[in-house]
Amino acid sequence: MLIHNQANGLYTDHYELTMAQGYFLSGKYRQRASFDYFYRKNPFNGGFVSFSGLSTFLELLKDFRFSKDDCNYLLSVGFNSEFVKYLETFSFSGDIWSVNEGEVIFPNEPVVRIEGNLAETQLIETLLLNVLNFESLIATKANRMRMVAGERLLLEFGLRRAQGFGGILATKAAMNGGFDATSNVMGARLHEVPSTGTMAHSWIQSFNDELEAFRTYARIFPDNCILLVDTYNTLKSGVPNAIKIAEELKNIGKGLSGIRLDSGDLTYLSKQSRKMLDYAGFPEVKIVASNQLDEYIIQSLLTQGAPVDSFGIGTALVTGKDDAALDGVYKLAELDGTPTMKFSENISKMTLPGKKKIWRYYDNDGLFKCDAIVLNDEKDIQRMHHPVEPGKHLNLASFKREELMTMVVKHGNFLNNNTQSAEIAIFTKNRLNKLPEEYKRFLNPHVYKTGISDKLLQIRNKLTNRE
Amino acid sequence: MLIHNQANGLYTDHYELTMAQGYFLSGKYRQRASFDYFYRKNPFNGGFVSFSGLSTFLELLKDFRFSKDDCNYLLSVGFNSEFVKYLETFSFSGDIWSVNEGEVIFPNEPVVRIEGNLAETQLIETLLLNVLNFESLIATKANRMRMVAGERLLLEFGLRRAQGFGGILATKAAMNGGFDATSNVMGARLHEVPSTGTMAHSWIQSFNDELEAFRTYARIFPDNCILLVDTYNTLKSGVPNAIKIAEELKNIGKGLSGIRLDSGDLTYLSKQSRKMLDYAGFPEVKIVASNQLDEYIIQSLLTQGAPVDSFGIGTALVTGKDDAALDGVYKLAELDGTPTMKFSENISKMTLPGKKKIWRYYDNDGLFKCDAIVLNDEKDIQRMHHPVEPGKHLNLASFKREELMTMVVKHGNFLNNNTQSAEIAIFTKNRLNKLPEEYKRFLNPHVYKTGISDKLLQIRNKLTNRE
Repeated sequence: MLIHNQANGLYTDHYELTMAQGYFLSGKYRQRASFDYFYRKNPFNGGFVSFSGLSTFLELLKDFRFSKDDCNYLLSVGFNSEFVKYLETFSFSGDIWSVNEGEVIFPNEPVVRIEGNLAETQLIETLLLNVLNFESLIATKANRMRMVAGERLLLEFGLRRAQGFGGILATKAAMNGGFDATSNVMGARLHEVPSTGTMAHSWIQSFNDELEAFRTYARIFPDNCILLVDTYNTLKSGVPNAIKIAEELKNIGKGLSGIRLDSGDLTYLSKQSRKMLDYAGFPEVKIVASNQLDEYIIQSLLTQGAPVDSFGIGTALVTGKDDAALDGVYKLAELDGTPTMKFSENISKMTLPGKKKIWRYYDNDGLFKCDAIVLNDEKDIQRMHHPVEPGKHLNLASFKREELMTMVVKHGNFLNNNTQSAEIAIFTKNRLNKLPEEYKRFLNPHVYKTGISDKLLQIRNKLTNRE
Repeated sequence: MLIHNQANGLYTDHYELTMAQGYFLSGKYRQRASFDYFYRKNPFNGGFVSFSGLSTFLELLKDFRFSKDDCNYLLSVGFNSEFVKYLETFSFSGDIWSVNEGEVIFPNEPVVRIEGNLAETQLIETLLLNVLNFESLIATKANRMRMVAGERLLLEFGLRRAQGFGGILATKAAMNGGFDATSNVMGARLHEVPSTGTMAHSWIQSFNDELEAFRTYARIFPDNCILLVDTYNTLKSGVPNAIKIAEELKNIGKGLSGIRLDSGDLTYLSKQSRKMLDYAGFPEVKIVASNQLDEYIIQSLLTQGAPVDSFGIGTALVTGKDDAALDGVYKLAELDGTPTMKFSENISKMTLPGKKKIWRYYDNDGLFKCDAIVLNDEKDIQRMHHPVEPGKHLNLASFKREELMTMVVKHGNFLNNNTQSAEIAIFTKNRLNKLPEEYKRFLNPHVYKTGISDKLLQIRNKLTNRE
């Protein structure tokens, strides 16, 4: 592929390398840094994000090295030879703590914490942001589609409209978020998920007539025959011809798997097609719908009773469409044991200093109630403060809680994590089930409460007042 | 990388493979097909698209093969062994005609024509769409930014917010579209373009104070020192400290290259910073602005007289933001010499049958006047017809014209093409200069006229009436 495939070290922004060189040559690179990953705004005007990309990021981080060839390139563009010598043997040797892949997360929560020397923690920033921002965006979009589609099949059909090679990770994220299969064969192979697909209009067009096109396909794929019925006229030609094929397949002990609608009014056409198939004695033949679908159109179709069994979704899923990027950032929180923060005229854009962890509290129904961001060494808290508005707090003493972050990399060793989409999807579903409905609705979702501990508030105030 | 790197054959939708298997097993695959690539709607409510991605597509097409390993995978997921044997030796053996990379193109123009056997022309569909749709989208966005930025430097800073590995092609497309450099080191290396970058806020935060951070950086990078001045307070701390460094660099015979503003009101801050730098005797120090920029914000900043020399642009550029995908499609136009088309209830969504080429006409000022889509064997036409509205036509006899498409692949041999971004960018600029202003404005651009020849209209009417 048109991608550098020996090592990933160059998959970074130029300034990560200039900073790392600066840290290296000034001797500061041995300082121990702790960085946080968090995002600020829920995408799609929604109430949450489904965290995705951890397994991809860790797999890429394992290969985050600089080949001899990379090093020569860096020398050729002016990097310092002592520094490049350091890069030649570079591999990430720090620690990473993260929430589980598939976790439901909220704005400003430091969901990944990277600790290590100042050079290595800086160098991996771009890779981390690139992968986590994109996969989390797409998994969240997939979740939204899954929430409205119920148990119906959801198929990712986006590669042709994906943002270049972004399609490879879009497939993983869609599957993590609850999709059932993809059209992307390379994505399917790399991520060990099923791929699917039958025919385009060009197949039909390449035959003298539609029936011959259908019949030839059924002969070659008698066990998975889904016929595209809208090339000429869905109800006058496509469905009647599909029914003929269903009869012919029945005669040889096989069955037509489904028909696909790819244009027109999908509610009307699916209802009429269903009636025709049922009347002809084929209630088991499925109806697949595609054509510029998104979560709103799926919801609308199902609200109107469209008898669609399976949705094929492309552009809106794999690009995030309305929100093409998650605004995740990577900020320094501690250096050599000293908490640090980024100031801003706007308190909501200030970062949270120090090493932190996240506690999730449950209400009495066993559902998620709120999250507290606390210092890493805190054992218990009685209350949490509103992160921005002074004086507002919530008592937590009586609620059950759990810790969200676990260690995934220790001294550069990659610990075992869930990396299979199938497992991540199950975890995603279970967690989303525990999020009350009011945070999941599309229109003006309720804002999930996140807060900070007394101690974290004190440190932030101390640093703010010192400025 | 987490990408399949031996061959590209699997970078395809599953249905391309099922169709190809169907064509292979039914013997139809030897039929000679001609497919067209075109898009339907200008992105960003604009008046044109800047065609990009051809060189990337051709480079990937060269490697569009199926390794032994790929073949075993395809067997394992149920593809037919005879067909897989055919794939083992597969390489594209057809012809490709295309407009030049960087050409200004318009909706419904068949800008790329792929001819070959039915199996090979089908198999490469997804790769072609994935690359051309994305790169053309981003190059067009880059053009829009270039149009408002004039000769100022434009820097692509998007990798952290790019859609996964999509960032690799976004860099190429941005450079094709007129950007000067990128932050993406791997992209820079692969596409042979310059990368750039200096420091993030974390650099400043890692020192005891801002001046020490600046001074250390200036010591290590005295020849390319651009200081980020907004970590604490831009005008009270950042710029005064940058001026101190400018003086120190001057004392050793060097000079401060620039300052970067990354938050706050960029117009106000750039004006004040410029005054302070000039007053201190450093009129040559450049001002770089970044932070969620797009073409509208750049235009607004410059309209207000913001003295910005260079813009760093991320998300809005590399994702297309408002329009995350170009709607390009790939449609069968001819099979074994017989024109074919896709019908639709909506005449504007019907495709144009037959092998076609594009003639561009010039007005008397040497600017682009209109484009005619004509049959490949036409020698001359007197007029063109509106593609949708019957009866409307335009006389062309007196206007100079040029042919837009050239052969880029002949019998599977890749002919020499421009592949360097620098050359493509120059071509892009020259072509865009010939497009009258009314098609380039952001608000309600004029619709560029495209039409079809008498003969093409006749064929379409004949096929439509036969239905």
